[in-house]
Amino acid sequence: MTLDIATRVYDHGFRIDPIVRTLLDTDFYKFLMVQLIRAQAPNVRATFGLVNRTTSVKLAAIVDERELRDQLDHARTIRFQKNELIWLAGNTFYGVRHIFSADFLDWLETFRLPPYELARTADGQYELTFEGPWAETSMWEIPALSILNELRARAAMKGMSRFELDVLYARAKARVWAKIERLRVLEREVGQVPVAEFGTRRRHGFLWQKWCVEALKEGLGDSFVGTSNVKMAMDAALEAIGTNAHELPMVYAALARDDAELRDAPYRVLADWARMYHGNLLVILPDTFGTTSFLRDAPDWAADWKGVRPDSKPPLEAADEVIAWWQARGRDPTDKLIVLSDGMDIDTIEAAARHLAGRCRLSIGWGTHLTNDFRDCAPAGSNPHLEAISLVCKVVAADGRPAVKLSDNPEKAVGPADEVARYARVFGTEGFRSHRVIV
Amino acid sequence: MTLDIATRVYDHGFRIDPIVRTLLDTDFYKFLMVQLIRAQAPNVRATFGLVNRTTSVKLAAIVDERELRDQLDHARTIRFQKNELIWLAGNTFYGVRHIFSADFLDWLETFRLPPYELARTADGQYELTFEGPWAETSMWEIPALSILNELRARAAMKGMSRFELDVLYARAKARVWAKIERLRVLEREVGQVPVAEFGTRRRHGFLWQKWCVEALKEGLGDSFVGTSNVKMAMDAALEAIGTNAHELPMVYAALARDDAELRDAPYRVLADWARMYHGNLLVILPDTFGTTSFLRDAPDWAADWKGVRPDSKPPLEAADEVIAWWQARGRDPTDKLIVLSDGMDIDTIEAAARHLAGRCRLSIGWGTHLTNDFRDCAPAGSNPHLEAISLVCKVVAADGRPAVKLSDNPEKAVGPADEVARYARVFGTEGFRSHRVIV
Repeated sequence: MTLDIATRVYDHGFRIDPIVRTLLDTDFYKFLMVQLIRAQAPNVRATFGLVNRTTSVKLAAIVDERELRDQLDHARTIRFQKNELIWLAGNTFYGVRHIFSADFLDWLETFRLPPYELARTADGQYELTFEGPWAETSMWEIPALSILNELRARAAMKGMSRFELDVLYARAKARVWAKIERLRVLEREVGQVPVAEFGTRRRHGFLWQKWCVEALKEGLGDSFVGTSNVKMAMDAALEAIGTNAHELPMVYAALARDDAELRDAPYRVLADWARMYHGNLLVILPDTFGTTSFLRDAPDWAADWKGVRPDSKPPLEAADEVIAWWQARGRDPTDKLIVLSDGMDIDTIEAAARHLAGRCRLSIGWGTHLTNDFRDCAPAGSNPHLEAISLVCKVVAADGRPAVKLSDNPEKAVGPADEVARYARVFGTEGFRSHRVIV
Repeated sequence: MTLDIATRVYDHGFRIDPIVRTLLDTDFYKFLMVQLIRAQAPNVRATFGLVNRTTSVKLAAIVDERELRDQLDHARTIRFQKNELIWLAGNTFYGVRHIFSADFLDWLETFRLPPYELARTADGQYELTFEGPWAETSMWEIPALSILNELRARAAMKGMSRFELDVLYARAKARVWAKIERLRVLEREVGQVPVAEFGTRRRHGFLWQKWCVEALKEGLGDSFVGTSNVKMAMDAALEAIGTNAHELPMVYAALARDDAELRDAPYRVLADWARMYHGNLLVILPDTFGTTSFLRDAPDWAADWKGVRPDSKPPLEAADEVIAWWQARGRDPTDKLIVLSDGMDIDTIEAAARHLAGRCRLSIGWGTHLTNDFRDCAPAGSNPHLEAISLVCKVVAADGRPAVKLSDNPEKAVGPADEVARYARVFGTEGFRSHRVIV
């Protein structure tokens, strides 16, 4: 092989190999949410914090602190580029032109990620927090997660030979493609199963995620409906996919002045959202304080929304519950959309597609198990540090008040115990059930 | 990715992408045999011809004739390079220094592949023959086979996208590595199983064979004992492996003046070989005219040879027969070597290693199923032209007399029907049994 000396020497000149190279390397829903936050809650301050739910993996012992700081610092140096802002302004998202206001685009032009606080905890984890205006700290969620996940993967691969890496990626590619072939077989049996790539936060690496996106495009054709990663959507001319996340009801709830306002918080999120966005962007995330109570107490107009994205109940069970709710509210579920994106993999995708065929529309958000499935791929045998962990970056406080998430699965609950207890009293715990969180 | 314009433009300047780039890109046994041929039969002329035993694959319809001629013509332009001859002269082979005589090395210095004759047959095959001095035409066997097999693989991959090729090779790599992992497990159970790479003639491609060699080196360590490919042995500092082939007894037999000389021909090969080579190079290939008769009529000193390489009977059956023969001749089989190299793959390697553990020494020559196992690897579904075929290049005449091979498997017989019948009468057909030839 010809050694390209210039390239080699140039590459050695880099101090680090940056994980986040553009602010577009984030999830699309961040842009929709932050535009809403700037309109509805411009003065709210919010603290986001990293939580590693896989406590057996001691991140602070695996990921070098200097490397972590270098990556976080580098991300803070980046600004949106002219061509990126032009694309955000000119592109059609969910069929809507000019979805982003001139005011929001102006804000992006000077945006930079706010400061971070990094410490180590006694139990071997990093305590990584972001404090500042909600619209700014919210933007850290995805880069913080992808930086930590990628640094962990790099640490796991340090010392592997070029050949070992070759086999590692060959096996991972063969695995992804085998899953895609199963999806193709599935489609021949049950009809189209729209799939979007949702794996930025938990990815093994940026280039690997890019390969997965390319694989979905090649393998699924029209059934690959897009990616949550804005940079990849722009570069590969794909749809950018995503709507909203738990942080909206969590902050609205944290700011509630009494239990009545607390009980109403999730619906005020919907009302504000529906003033700004329409059509297929009207997707409910029902589980922040429990799906069953959310559906039971929802105003009737909520059933007019296009879809629901269950995120913590077992997917078939959750879908059945939502379909029953649409029917009880007199809506036709076959017009409605269920988005499943909670730890989905090929087995659960197959099960969901068969279970829901003909009953409602289904869309899959395929994340961690797509972009970070390296279990047993290392040629030297099992390498536990290549297996994905359940790392999240959640809002923990708003204007100094604790933020809480109950979830349908108590394993995913977030917040101080007394506040969790208060929320459980206000919303009830109907339909809650613990099951182990893998990713 | 940086586009290296200079490399790109330089690459475009090539008229063809040569398959054979050095005369060392051949099997080691050719050098041992040709040195013997030049010493024992310097004036014999021999014709070699290609036979595609997989008649369902119409090579002339798949491989472009112009491309084939270009590759063959290019191979004829190559000479041994100075550094290659120095290595052949100075390296130790099978523990022997100076295995090649000065006379032979001088001959190699001016050697070039002799002319070829290429025609198309009515049933869609190429008739590719080489006529000339035996020592020269013999050297065509391996390059002719690798050129045709690689051109077929290239034709099968024409039109595949970069992504499809990426998945193709990822799957092939994952498959090879899975086989290597099974070998590692096997060794933990039955002890060391020495494996040599024998796949030059049937390889998917040179670079792919090189990858397979690297994989064996990485995965098997000391149990990977070398490669039959002389170029790869030189470049990777591996042992060059191989001894002798059917052409020796076939030509000796063709030149026999009567049935008595014919019956004696296989043993005259051994006698001539043992005058030139010793130790671990004394490996008998017993099946040219039937293993059972060969062993029955063999002179006692043949049982002193180090090993036997069965090549057409089912391997376990053949090994049992050879072990029984050693025992009947009063030799201890545990000192002896069985080399299995006829269409071996991981299943048959495992079976052989278990079957022979503790009974004799075993060495595997792993060929086609290592370097050309692409079945179902193409992402667009099954591509039959990526599956290996049974293409051989055999001696068909010596000094104008037909050459014959009976083999233990009548499907592998070579030669005109009347001569095959005569040989069958002289040697008998004891132990013959037909089974389908895959590769």
